[in-house]
Amino acid sequence: MPEHGRVPKYYAVKGQLEALLDELGEGGVLPTERELAARFEVARETLRQALRELLIQGRVRRRGRSTVVAGPKLEQPLSLASYTEGVRRQGRVPGRTLIGLERLGAEPQLAGQLGIGPGDPVWHLERVLLADGERVGLESTYLAVGRVPGLEEEFDPGSSLYAYLGEKVGISFGAADERIETVLATPREALLIGTPPALPMLLLHRLTRDSADRPVERVRSLYRGDRFSFTTRLEAD
Amino acid sequence: MPEHGRVPKYYAVKGQLEALLDELGEGGVLPTERELAARFEVARETLRQALRELLIQGRVRRRGRSTVVAGPKLEQPLSLASYTEGVRRQGRVPGRTLIGLERLGAEPQLAGQLGIGPGDPVWHLERVLLADGERVGLESTYLAVGRVPGLEEEFDPGSSLYAYLGEKVGISFGAADERIETVLATPREALLIGTPPALPMLLLHRLTRDSADRPVERVRSLYRGDRFSFTTRLEAD
Repeated sequence: MPEHGRVPKYYAVKGQLEALLDELGEGGVLPTERELAARFEVARETLRQALRELLIQGRVRRRGRSTVVAGPKLEQPLSLASYTEGVRRQGRVPGRTLIGLERLGAEPQLAGQLGIGPGDPVWHLERVLLADGERVGLESTYLAVGRVPGLEEEFDPGSSLYAYLGEKVGISFGAADERIETVLATPREALLIGTPPALPMLLLHRLTRDSADRPVERVRSLYRGDRFSFTTRLEAD
Repeated sequence: MPEHGRVPKYYAVKGQLEALLDELGEGGVLPTERELAARFEVARETLRQALRELLIQGRVRRRGRSTVVAGPKLEQPLSLASYTEGVRRQGRVPGRTLIGLERLGAEPQLAGQLGIGPGDPVWHLERVLLADGERVGLESTYLAVGRVPGLEEEFDPGSSLYAYLGEKVGISFGAADERIETVLATPREALLIGTPPALPMLLLHRLTRDSADRPVERVRSLYRGDRFSFTTRLEAD
């Protein structure tokens, strides 16, 4: 770092730890904090700060009481295809756990986005997203009840919503506008996904329309920033 | 939070602060930490934790010694268009500051990505990205020297690289593969961009090809997570 010539001590330790992770390889178990602090001749707190950043970045993971070398982040294509399909393409087993399905009156903004009147009934479906049984995200979807009246009765919340909407309801997807940002998990979200609070997350806001350009759903999907990345192919106009 | 019934104290304070930010409006100046701690009847450290998260999320910003309500995040379209164009479309003034332009031998991985031999000369161009004069990101670009031999002589590093490549070198862009993730700024990056270290950033990796499908550049762009979001439109196949 020639610009100022000072490297914080924890950051130098992080570099040494990264070299160790490469040596150990995916799934390798790290020595205890006490052993590592002794090996690098630093205070426990300095070592912990380095480990904390590696944890946030997804380079290491907790497994019971030990810390192991993590695999690479999942690479989920940004596409109209469902979460289910994206995870399957990467050779992982997708899953979902229902948090809640409620019927509410639409707030004015949501009503405008879904093309219904303020106060008209909407479904709010909230599910934890799983990959290979691990909790990796939280998805919150709003749909007009008038569009999908049978959702509560017919839909298995452990299955793909897009498969249901396509095959059972006969909706043909047209396009979605998506916005991606990084946010910190709220305490509630951290609890539901099982991450440390304040872990950086990737947040996707989506508005989906059918092939006749009518609104279908508004979705807010939160993905663990230490486990997920998103890919896309951009073409010249 | 019915799931566990416990809200951390700082998080309740954060909610109260958010209501205050809405009242004050963009650019509004917050009372001092001492005044806020007294108003919410909490310890200074609890108040600081809430402010820290609001700062990381880009809801507030430092201006000199005071803290002000921040505007919304920039919404940059994911597209083959340059940073310059994306920022202009949002009515902001783009800018760039040169950090360095070096000539190096290509590492094997980079050589493969650029379609040249290992050790062949490459340019490494590093620039800080500005919007309305504020540092918002850091861009690191690799190009084969054989493809753009006049870069050092001809290119004004304060201008758009894509405009140069298109208009002066005659490169016609075809497509780019992009990957987005969230990472923590390294100390060097935090210093160059002027952010607190460990601020969550959005990192875009890009490989660009020309209309004849030949590689043009490999880019690593880091954007402040508190100032940027990315938008895209997804179409059905």
